[in-house]
Amino acid sequence: MSGPNPFIKDYLMTAGPTPLPPRVLAAMAEPVVYHRAPAFDALFGRILERLPALFGTANDVMVLTGSGTAAMDSAVCNLVRPGQAILACAAGKFGERWIELGEAYEAEVHRYEPGWGARLDATEVDRRLAEHPGVGLVYATLSETSTGVVHDVRALAEAARAHEAMLVVDGISGVGATELRQDEWGIDVVVTGSQKALMTPPGLGFVSASPRALARAQEQPAGRYSLDWNRAIAEQRKGATPFTPAVTLIRALDVALDLIEEEGLAHVLARHDLLARAARAGVAGMGLDLFGDPDERSTVVTALELPEAVDGARVPGLLRERGITANGGQGELKGRILRIAHCGYFGAFDVLTILAGLELVLRELGADVELGSGVAGAQRVFAEAGVPVAAPSA
Amino acid sequence: MSGPNPFIKDYLMTAGPTPLPPRVLAAMAEPVVYHRAPAFDALFGRILERLPALFGTANDVMVLTGSGTAAMDSAVCNLVRPGQAILACAAGKFGERWIELGEAYEAEVHRYEPGWGARLDATEVDRRLAEHPGVGLVYATLSETSTGVVHDVRALAEAARAHEAMLVVDGISGVGATELRQDEWGIDVVVTGSQKALMTPPGLGFVSASPRALARAQEQPAGRYSLDWNRAIAEQRKGATPFTPAVTLIRALDVALDLIEEEGLAHVLARHDLLARAARAGVAGMGLDLFGDPDERSTVVTALELPEAVDGARVPGLLRERGITANGGQGELKGRILRIAHCGYFGAFDVLTILAGLELVLRELGADVELGSGVAGAQRVFAEAGVPVAAPSA
Repeated sequence: MSGPNPFIKDYLMTAGPTPLPPRVLAAMAEPVVYHRAPAFDALFGRILERLPALFGTANDVMVLTGSGTAAMDSAVCNLVRPGQAILACAAGKFGERWIELGEAYEAEVHRYEPGWGARLDATEVDRRLAEHPGVGLVYATLSETSTGVVHDVRALAEAARAHEAMLVVDGISGVGATELRQDEWGIDVVVTGSQKALMTPPGLGFVSASPRALARAQEQPAGRYSLDWNRAIAEQRKGATPFTPAVTLIRALDVALDLIEEEGLAHVLARHDLLARAARAGVAGMGLDLFGDPDERSTVVTALELPEAVDGARVPGLLRERGITANGGQGELKGRILRIAHCGYFGAFDVLTILAGLELVLRELGADVELGSGVAGAQRVFAEAGVPVAAPSA
Repeated sequence: MSGPNPFIKDYLMTAGPTPLPPRVLAAMAEPVVYHRAPAFDALFGRILERLPALFGTANDVMVLTGSGTAAMDSAVCNLVRPGQAILACAAGKFGERWIELGEAYEAEVHRYEPGWGARLDATEVDRRLAEHPGVGLVYATLSETSTGVVHDVRALAEAARAHEAMLVVDGISGVGATELRQDEWGIDVVVTGSQKALMTPPGLGFVSASPRALARAQEQPAGRYSLDWNRAIAEQRKGATPFTPAVTLIRALDVALDLIEEEGLAHVLARHDLLARAARAGVAGMGLDLFGDPDERSTVVTALELPEAVDGARVPGLLRERGITANGGQGELKGRILRIAHCGYFGAFDVLTILAGLELVLRELGADVELGSGVAGAQRVFAEAGVPVAAPSA
């Protein structure tokens, strides 16, 4: 047999970009819509009306053309001027991005770094804010994609509020995949991106900012332009965008929001929860350990420790030989963990597929893993829940 | 007859986003590629290899996820720190964006504003640089989309060079549609976007920066993050991107660059030139005047003055009733001009279509325009050139 093996199909199983529903893909092949025409007004209106529910907010959610990182960037350059003090909480690669952003904009950056895989502890945030009363902004992460931990941002918001600081949350992989009640929990800013649970290609960032966060941005108008919230919110309230937006991605998002609406947000979150429980059971079934300190909130990505006996850095490549593109560890976790993504357009058989692939790969690398052990662990969870679970109706 | 009129089809005829070739649209419906996998490496490599020819440069062209305005933004926030002096040249809406950007980043902004529709005069730039020897950066526009004028950036570069200033050019609608020889003409920075002559949806920005422009950005590392050139260039030289890029748009661009390669860049530019000459002849055939001070370089958009006797603000809406989405005037030109776009995926019959539509609309508004007069003017130019002209092979 020469050429590609016809038994091997391609499975995108990363935590972002995530695989897209066929209806979303098809929408992008539609002719381009002009962004100052009635057809776009209707489309953009539908988007703006439906986004806030995903955040649990009454704020206008701003749509930026850029990566999720651009949305994070906007939450620093709009709120922080050189010399102002912030507290950056980092327990993984994406938490560390807040530190880098704070430094890039010449903030006085106080750090809370409990280590990769740890859960952020609200009492530690409280202690640091008491120590540094000048800190007006706390930056944290909802779902730390690099470690699989979903943080208790509700508790962090309480700690911030006690010190009259605003909490800014990176919700890039979390929004739409795990519970979030921005307004009820008192979170000032949540940012996210299109390419995770929103089932849209990368290239759009979203920002939900409270009136007092918007007021702070108004008071400090310099130091940014294309990511400026003042321009974005003023145009959006007229149903427009200040600059040519990524119209094709906005159309794709419109279809993705249709799918989320059809499934129902509560069912979407329940699906993520069940996929995560099945993944954790699969990991246990193979006799492996979860990485770090996940809990029942960790519904986005399941990180597992690779056996010390195997060359863990080879795992993603060997999975890819079987058609599966999955995330190993990043940074200091390279070669030590594998991440099973289940945020966005993932169903039960996707979890079984990556577990089956992992069993094969670990055996090839010499680990003592029984074929079917991981799959069976996950299958039992799905069966107990009366799977087939609801999946997006694409 | 009820419902939409079946004789009316949709024609996107704006200067950005521009209509897309079918092959580009189809590529966006392909499954998403992970940006840290071999398939993306090959794709991104092809893009990086082919972009410089469009600029006439040996620079590495940076690919940013964002609008064309984000690319312009990057050319200010990477080069200008608060208090530094720049000269912003503005003869239309997009030139004025440089002024706004300079002010947003707290530069000392000197302005050269000869009026909307004027051509930027290199001797005036020279005079201002002589008056203000502290100015290290001149910002100008290649193709001013709001007026149809293509500026002589070669002459501007000479003027800047004589004062040891760097020239930064907004090439958003110009790159790929009009002649540009960045290195030969000595232009330090050219930025562009995906949604004009590059025949790709909006959402990607491109920056070609000279070694000395990159060095200036290196020396002043603060004040930006997601638009930071230092991060972008360092990752790109490893074939990667610092943050999740808009992979779907990058795939679309890959196909668009195939089409440009198949037609040949020289033929692409010749096609734009002929379309523009035909459009100008069509305008003359209808007895109308061109707006502003265009010359043979103005191959991107043809702006015409609407007759004073008609209510010009109604023209775009009446064209849209006939299925044609075209640009009227922006800002101070609203209701005064119509812009015939011919940058990107435009062919001969597109020019005839908008001219025919304009004839009808002007007559409806009471102007004395003979049916067929504009179309005939353009047809004669195409016939003399031996049309059918080469068109993209999509």
